Amino acid sequence: MKDLKVGILGATGAVGRQMLTVLEERQFPVEELRLFAGSRSKGSRISCFGKEWLVEETDPERFRGLDLLLGAAENDIAMKYLPLAAEMGVQVVDNSSAYRLDPEVPLVIPEINPEDVGRTKGIIANPNCATIIALTAVGALHRYARIRRMIVSTYQAVSGAGKDGIDELLNEVSALSQGQKPEPKVFQYQIAYNLIPQIGGFNELLYSSEEMKMQNEGRKMLHDEKLLVNCTCVRVPIIRSHSESITLEFEREISPEKARELLAEAPGVKLWDEPNEGKYPMPLLTSDQDLVYVGRIRRDLSAPKELYDRSLSLFCCADQVRKGAATNAVQIAELLFR
Amino acid sequence: MKDLKVGILGATGAVGRQMLTVLEERQFPVEELRLFAGSRSKGSRISCFGKEWLVEETDPERFRGLDLLLGAAENDIAMKYLPLAAEMGVQVVDNSSAYRLDPEVPLVIPEINPEDVGRTKGIIANPNCATIIALTAVGALHRYARIRRMIVSTYQAVSGAGKDGIDELLNEVSALSQGQKPEPKVFQYQIAYNLIPQIGGFNELLYSSEEMKMQNEGRKMLHDEKLLVNCTCVRVPIIRSHSESITLEFEREISPEKARELLAEAPGVKLWDEPNEGKYPMPLLTSDQDLVYVGRIRRDLSAPKELYDRSLSLFCCADQVRKGAATNAVQIAELLFR
Repeated sequence: MKDLKVGILGATGAVGRQMLTVLEERQFPVEELRLFAGSRSKGSRISCFGKEWLVEETDPERFRGLDLLLGAAENDIAMKYLPLAAEMGVQVVDNSSAYRLDPEVPLVIPEINPEDVGRTKGIIANPNCATIIALTAVGALHRYARIRRMIVSTYQAVSGAGKDGIDELLNEVSALSQGQKPEPKVFQYQIAYNLIPQIGGFNELLYSSEEMKMQNEGRKMLHDEKLLVNCTCVRVPIIRSHSESITLEFEREISPEKARELLAEAPGVKLWDEPNEGKYPMPLLTSDQDLVYVGRIRRDLSAPKELYDRSLSLFCCADQVRKGAATNAVQIAELLFR
Repeated sequence: MKDLKVGILGATGAVGRQMLTVLEERQFPVEELRLFAGSRSKGSRISCFGKEWLVEETDPERFRGLDLLLGAAENDIAMKYLPLAAEMGVQVVDNSSAYRLDPEVPLVIPEINPEDVGRTKGIIANPNCATIIALTAVGALHRYARIRRMIVSTYQAVSGAGKDGIDELLNEVSALSQGQKPEPKVFQYQIAYNLIPQIGGFNELLYSSEEMKMQNEGRKMLHDEKLLVNCTCVRVPIIRSHSESITLEFEREISPEKARELLAEAPGVKLWDEPNEGKYPMPLLTSDQDLVYVGRIRRDLSAPKELYDRSLSLFCCADQVRKGAATNAVQIAELLFR
């Protein structure tokens, strides 16, 4: 693979910085980096691949000549700039939610639907973090027994709201320890020692936007418009790594033993399922690495008799800044260029 | 109601102390208090009902003459002492799990199955905290449409492990802020900024003891041996108040609007369900009060077509030391003596 000219839009945010680390760790063949950010960050420098790179204010003219542009910005910035890059022939991989459901735009988890990368017309979308983690966890089970129904409750870290989210949690903890009252800005309410069952706005059925992503993006990536997904998304006072409690109904029989056998071999997954030995997924284990830990695999005791052999529950956990965002985007780039 | 001689076994623990506060708040007619604890606490004094009461080392002879003994001790202590009190004719209400599934012992949530109190032979059991909260939340829906299946994921506060659990979380947060490594004693792993999907030991199906309580105690209190319950219990870094994400399947049709109408009138429940106004249950709202907050009521999008009108999801939250333990026990005593 030839050395590439790579741009990052939103290079100074939590996901942008993580993308740089992941590119370096995975020895992605970078010849030149162009780091784009808002005017506030202009002129700052970031070390990567043994060099210092200047952060530039975003200017679409500077997209010219890039092989790859990684999008790590919010939807409005993504929609303003990424189509311009795509028109110039730059391959774009975007982490925002702006293009995920566009039928012209592939939405890809390399372990789940790598074949969809081929359909690209310039932009490829990186899925929602909680969706990446859930689908990577259950992908091998789906290929074996086909998932019909998923009931998911999430435990989502504050890093989902970027560096500001992490700062807010730590500042609140510190304020409370000094007897001061926290003043939330990033989250709707105090998040220290609290949880918030809202991530995003609500639709007419009173599901939050984050909750609907699991169904909408899941259907697109599994190529199954009938997939039934019920999700409850909850922000919890954890710094990094999202956890998810998932109950699954399949079309065909599958046992916990078979599920373990499949997940032991599944790409991107670490089977961590010996509860009697204290082995189950936890944020403490899964932060700052790339695998989705899966454990607590068991029969669904609530399944009606006729579904008992086709139902499972499990618990999974992964770093949402890495596999839930930056690593998945870089993996997509590897699929494209390797 | 005549003034009563009331004992508390385990009076110096988190639940025992909360029982004293609740007795006082609810103006329970106490003539005399006898506070029992281990030898470590002997001789300490606790203020309540405008007097100071001496803490005594537990001595069954001192149960004699009591009208009511509230049990707030661990199973081994409960099993050692409570039958002796019952034999002496003392009415016992026990918060441990030792007698909950004993067919001779009523297991009661006053809002759900008050009629079962009548079956007592001396000991009445107070249910598990997460079970009390879930069943209080869904009781009115069950009476209307009859629950067949419950899928529950919990977010359980460290107060479930008593004062030691709270201290451990706060000490870990403090240690981490000083760059020190936490040394967990109460929980299996660090709980600060982490979560642990294990509460209690695992059975042969790999469900934890806490998870099985929801099914076993739920079946007993709803008098339905066929009730199907799947529970995933998770400890989270929250000080007080357990939260639960619950998906329900009913025998008869029930809409979110009907559920809201029923819960607005349900005893022990506070309907808090205007998500677009930021109204949904959270630990921050529900700690140090007695109601179970219920919100995020909506159709279950994962329900197959034939079950869509008979399925709901909701989120509930309540103070586990109060309604999940002390308050429920005192409410049982009120049923017995009022």
